[in-house]
Amino acid sequence: MNIKLVLNFLGKLFLIEAMLMLPALGVSIAYGQGDAMAFVYSIIAILAVSLPLTLIFRPKDHQMYAREALAVAGLGWLLMSLLGGLPLVFSGACSFIDAFFEITSGFTTTGATIMTDIESLSNGLHFWRTFTHWIGGMGVLVFTTAILPTIGGRGAHLARAESPGPTFSKLTPKLGDTAKIMYMIYFVLTFIEIIALLLAGMSLFDAVLHAFSTAGTGGFSNRALSIGAFNNLAVEIIIAVFMFLFGINFAVYFKLFNRDFKGALKNEEVKLYSLIAFCAILVITLNLIPYYGDFFTALRYASFQVPTIMSTTGYATANFNLWPSFSKMLLMSLMLFGACAGSTAGGLKMTRLVMLLKMARREIRRAFQPRKIQVIKLDGKTVPEETLAQVSMLFFCHVLLILVGAVVVSLEEVSFTTAFTTSLTCISNVGPGLEVVGPIGSFAGYSAPTKVFLSILMLAGRLELYPILILFSPAAWRRG
Amino acid sequence: MNIKLVLNFLGKLFLIEAMLMLPALGVSIAYGQGDAMAFVYSIIAILAVSLPLTLIFRPKDHQMYAREALAVAGLGWLLMSLLGGLPLVFSGACSFIDAFFEITSGFTTTGATIMTDIESLSNGLHFWRTFTHWIGGMGVLVFTTAILPTIGGRGAHLARAESPGPTFSKLTPKLGDTAKIMYMIYFVLTFIEIIALLLAGMSLFDAVLHAFSTAGTGGFSNRALSIGAFNNLAVEIIIAVFMFLFGINFAVYFKLFNRDFKGALKNEEVKLYSLIAFCAILVITLNLIPYYGDFFTALRYASFQVPTIMSTTGYATANFNLWPSFSKMLLMSLMLFGACAGSTAGGLKMTRLVMLLKMARREIRRAFQPRKIQVIKLDGKTVPEETLAQVSMLFFCHVLLILVGAVVVSLEEVSFTTAFTTSLTCISNVGPGLEVVGPIGSFAGYSAPTKVFLSILMLAGRLELYPILILFSPAAWRRG
Repeated sequence: MNIKLVLNFLGKLFLIEAMLMLPALGVSIAYGQGDAMAFVYSIIAILAVSLPLTLIFRPKDHQMYAREALAVAGLGWLLMSLLGGLPLVFSGACSFIDAFFEITSGFTTTGATIMTDIESLSNGLHFWRTFTHWIGGMGVLVFTTAILPTIGGRGAHLARAESPGPTFSKLTPKLGDTAKIMYMIYFVLTFIEIIALLLAGMSLFDAVLHAFSTAGTGGFSNRALSIGAFNNLAVEIIIAVFMFLFGINFAVYFKLFNRDFKGALKNEEVKLYSLIAFCAILVITLNLIPYYGDFFTALRYASFQVPTIMSTTGYATANFNLWPSFSKMLLMSLMLFGACAGSTAGGLKMTRLVMLLKMARREIRRAFQPRKIQVIKLDGKTVPEETLAQVSMLFFCHVLLILVGAVVVSLEEVSFTTAFTTSLTCISNVGPGLEVVGPIGSFAGYSAPTKVFLSILMLAGRLELYPILILFSPAAWRRG
Repeated sequence: MNIKLVLNFLGKLFLIEAMLMLPALGVSIAYGQGDAMAFVYSIIAILAVSLPLTLIFRPKDHQMYAREALAVAGLGWLLMSLLGGLPLVFSGACSFIDAFFEITSGFTTTGATIMTDIESLSNGLHFWRTFTHWIGGMGVLVFTTAILPTIGGRGAHLARAESPGPTFSKLTPKLGDTAKIMYMIYFVLTFIEIIALLLAGMSLFDAVLHAFSTAGTGGFSNRALSIGAFNNLAVEIIIAVFMFLFGINFAVYFKLFNRDFKGALKNEEVKLYSLIAFCAILVITLNLIPYYGDFFTALRYASFQVPTIMSTTGYATANFNLWPSFSKMLLMSLMLFGACAGSTAGGLKMTRLVMLLKMARREIRRAFQPRKIQVIKLDGKTVPEETLAQVSMLFFCHVLLILVGAVVVSLEEVSFTTAFTTSLTCISNVGPGLEVVGPIGSFAGYSAPTKVFLSILMLAGRLELYPILILFSPAAWRRG
């Protein structure tokens, strides 16, 4: 491990984080709610960590190998969350551990909160919370690919570690260009959502906050009742549509942009994503009719809750914790795979589900046609066996981590349902679970060690395990 | 699909089933509780199905290919469960659907029951219930390998379909001999357990019943409070030890029998099984001390409940549904992998966990040593990549089925915990879950369609999915 290179790189990341705190400082000054100094102190503190790192550790060898790239991803996300919580601490909003959990939840675009009286926060802090979603969401896709060209175009390893999913199509030959296109799509979609929310009657501040949160598929809101607080059908429809859109592989938008409509439409992952969303909305609507008493109310809530869970955003318009068992179980099951790879969503991603289903079908066929060689194709292209093995293993590690997480959380003496859905929702970066951590619940009741543990689960889920697992692997730290 | 061959073979299986009902008829006559005719009618009914099948369908081609073998395994287990429920129906103990569920639970060695007043059953029925465990447990290992030599020694396909786990070591070159050795080990272990239970003070009838149930890792008991009803420490220790022993790969006993102590001791699967059991007992004991008030009581209950869950037997000495969350969550997690392959236990099997963990470690290493070729070894031998792919896919299908099962069960409007653990315990062939289906609970409350669905889940789990999945695969039924 080239530790100097890693530390130098981390220093640069923190510098960027300090700069990203400036807009929040601006909001804070504009609203004058007395928390501006919390941001000033935080920026100073971050610079105090960042500058020595960049200045003292000057690596001789600038070659970034996979192990360095993975360590940067893991440590970077972790430490940025730690430092990003400072404004909450300095403003007295919560303890250091709580702030770490809250901003990890922000950067990982989970949206789980330890706040119990969310509406008492200042606007500057509200802005920063949702802004971490916006940064985190795009960061996962291309944040680092924009910085990596500065170390000589060797960023492919890091992009591999941070891009959610195996089909992160290389849109253009150069990584820097890919990042720019991603940014553009992200900016444009966010901008359109802000405009739409304004037209639906939201204030500019609320529109910006919720657009940030939707874009990153995060789920933080400045209202205790989440989107339900607005009780505005137009707002619900707009947000539901945009959550769904931000869950689609961005490569599809790139193809649409290039007028490759055929290529965009034949994407198997997006087809499965749409199909599952459609079926889930349908059956949950049917399941909810007796609960709400009429079809349209049931449809309204189902059509919002399915995309919010599948895109792993985690907004709520209804307390689905009170819904019939079937709807709850289905929503929880949808968390596991989330939405598409190459989007800002969490979970294992639809493309992996497509591959796993195809692999399962192949194994069944192999049982009675043992000699036939059967390759697996995705969007018409053969998937290398090595990728398939990776996907299988990620699935195994993901499920194992959910179980281990559930066992650890259950030390808190919460119910089986609470413990299990806490682990599931954190690793899948959704936000709400059931019972205590339900849509109107909070993670505030957990002890400090559990909050730290859950933060690590969120990071492991967001970075697709390896960069976090590797931090605990002695072999990765050996010199060489 | 050679349908004639399949039907002919099924007929022979039913003939054997009818013969296996004779001991239960004997018990019924001996105790004279008035249910002997129920067995007589059942035997006549089974013969009425069996004889036409064997006599009418005389296949020209006796070659059994994988698809026929898998179809025989799937249909055979299913239909034997259907017919095996007849004594319960004819004696008026329960409805046809309930009897199907109960005997499927018996043959699959699950031990889940729809009985609410278990102690009211006649001794003949008690005997038959636990005897189905004993038949099912060994059946999964070698039942069919003893019949298969009659169709020309081509039984390897079926053995592959029914033996639980990939490391069913071919103990001897001839399948028939393997079956004999398996039978012998099974008989001897069952016999020793009966003697031990007699010495501990159990009646002969109770000893036989519980030895059958332990041997098959089933879990049916003739007491409502399961083993807890005896409140006898010696009995608990004997049963705990034998449950653990019946969860060990029988190939290990064969090696011990051949004085290959070195080979027996280096078995990685058994090592992991023992290690997990030891650690689980330790942490659950610690977790239970505040609940029971002293170390030894906590140790007593933990040392029984861990082997009963890991071996997927499902007996209870305590209502673990009332235990602290951590213990409950850990017990439920242990269900997923169960015990060793080549034993009578259910679940995914420890050998698969060993392989999955090794594959996961390999993927992590590959992330930073992408060029190094790394093979996976088990007990010193390289595992073919094809086997590894199979294991990964079985894991995926198993988890997916648990989720689908949980969603379907939740249509019953039971709690999240009940629905989830119902699905988990059925697929893993354990028996009890939590809440409604907890150790002193029952599956009686579920509707008939759910009971049928759960029976299919038990079968799918027992036969490791493929023979059941294949019944729903149109490609398998095509002529060819």
